[in-house]
Amino acid sequence: MTRFAFLIDPAPADAGAVDLDATIARIDPDQPALSVGDMSANRGDGVFESIGVFDGRAKQVGPHLDRLANSARLLDMPEPNRAQWRRAVETAVAAVPDEGEWTIKLLISRGVQIGAVGAPSSGPTAWVTASRSADYTAQRTDGIRVVSLDRGYDSNAAQRSPWLLLGAKTLSYAVNMAAAREARRRGADEAVFTTTDGYLLEAPTANLILRRGDQFVTPEPTAGLLHGTTQLEAFDWLEDSGYPTGYEHLPAAALADADAAWFVSSIRLAAPISSIDGRALPVDHALTAALNDYLRS
Amino acid sequence: MTRFAFLIDPAPADAGAVDLDATIARIDPDQPALSVGDMSANRGDGVFESIGVFDGRAKQVGPHLDRLANSARLLDMPEPNRAQWRRAVETAVAAVPDEGEWTIKLLISRGVQIGAVGAPSSGPTAWVTASRSADYTAQRTDGIRVVSLDRGYDSNAAQRSPWLLLGAKTLSYAVNMAAAREARRRGADEAVFTTTDGYLLEAPTANLILRRGDQFVTPEPTAGLLHGTTQLEAFDWLEDSGYPTGYEHLPAAALADADAAWFVSSIRLAAPISSIDGRALPVDHALTAALNDYLRS
Repeated sequence: MTRFAFLIDPAPADAGAVDLDATIARIDPDQPALSVGDMSANRGDGVFESIGVFDGRAKQVGPHLDRLANSARLLDMPEPNRAQWRRAVETAVAAVPDEGEWTIKLLISRGVQIGAVGAPSSGPTAWVTASRSADYTAQRTDGIRVVSLDRGYDSNAAQRSPWLLLGAKTLSYAVNMAAAREARRRGADEAVFTTTDGYLLEAPTANLILRRGDQFVTPEPTAGLLHGTTQLEAFDWLEDSGYPTGYEHLPAAALADADAAWFVSSIRLAAPISSIDGRALPVDHALTAALNDYLRS
Repeated sequence: MTRFAFLIDPAPADAGAVDLDATIARIDPDQPALSVGDMSANRGDGVFESIGVFDGRAKQVGPHLDRLANSARLLDMPEPNRAQWRRAVETAVAAVPDEGEWTIKLLISRGVQIGAVGAPSSGPTAWVTASRSADYTAQRTDGIRVVSLDRGYDSNAAQRSPWLLLGAKTLSYAVNMAAAREARRRGADEAVFTTTDGYLLEAPTANLILRRGDQFVTPEPTAGLLHGTTQLEAFDWLEDSGYPTGYEHLPAAALADADAAWFVSSIRLAAPISSIDGRALPVDHALTAALNDYLRS
């Protein structure tokens, strides 16, 4: 449930000196705030980021803002004003309590459509929300049961057809939500997407890391997935801890054959995978706890 | 631009006797009406229909409500109350002027998320908008330039992987919008999607009809596209006019080899395709005009 919300009046990227606070208006999250013509609600036409906040500290704000800008570029939307979005994150962080786990979402919609399909919009609309995160203790400790689901694309689709927006974090997440429902229908907690040519991608809202011996690998971001901010952080920690890391085209079977595996995301942090398609995977409790201590800090 | 808007309080499908008018509230379309936590705006998680209104008459309301219900079912959303939605359409039609071309949109969102990803929602939110349609005279008369774009899926994806939601008209249309931008970038008016295994699908917001001699064909709806209400109407008229019609798996080359071709949709009606990937296609002005007279009436 959204506890705090802010409407943002998007400033041009090159706006120069702007009274940023004047562009960020706190609103009552229970009151209507968006027009029925907003293209986010009509077309899923926009971009977003979710940032974990732990005891008052927002995780990896810079990389999240980088990815927000990249998503906007892939959707031919105006470049976000970085200073404005940084201020918006700071404003949201200041609003939430200094303890516990919170989720801050940044959303930019193409705006309100003027006229017919494809016609120009009013210019972007944007907002920020803050909600208390779900309790992920059990997932982080006991692990999650995962089933693999076809994402429908081959591993060259992202490069071949950029209009499929495979590297963008868009508001069009109906398929991600449907995959999560399908996973639960199959008695699992979550899905991992695979390509039609048999490679591992990511989860609907997380990235995948596998352990093979002392090496840690994640699927190539160019294969049609979102490059994860938390995966990057986890790799930093693993490298510092003496483990080599790498990006690979990983066949679907690599998950069942892994020595351990995790879903990682900014909100949930690292959740060990306890089974894939019904087959048990080893869970390394000590390493997971140490990784989560690092990601939380 | 939205001229009229109505918030709908969704009634259960089996609600029995309900004061339907009390569930339909006219609102000012320029005032905020949706919560920032609505899953339509956050996840493109919902379904919609667009219905053309010509001189005060809404087209094919029954088939549109059938498809809305089918989309909701594919997204595991509650079955819409048909009487309520019929009343909502009537209410919107009564609000618009009796002349000219209008677009009525019906939208159902999964609702406002309570808690974490995948958690239950508040129950659906829903609304109806009415806008004056764009002027499609030139497209209907002169035709449209079309380029073919890869949809990223093979023609078995819809059957193999229902969580891809290929037969549902969802609010996650960012890829459709991106394809329309890519078409304009290539100097065309619009895109036609093809499968990775080389078959024709549909346009981002229309269905495709080809003429081969005296026969008219459209791609198989089972191949991962939306079965079009206007395509069905057009086939009725063509059959009545003595032309055989059919559904086929049509290879991409069939479009360039056609004797004529059209995009058909509820709002734009039939727009002849004047070129595909830069190659001219014959435009049958007389037949197009007769078909549009029928579709408009």
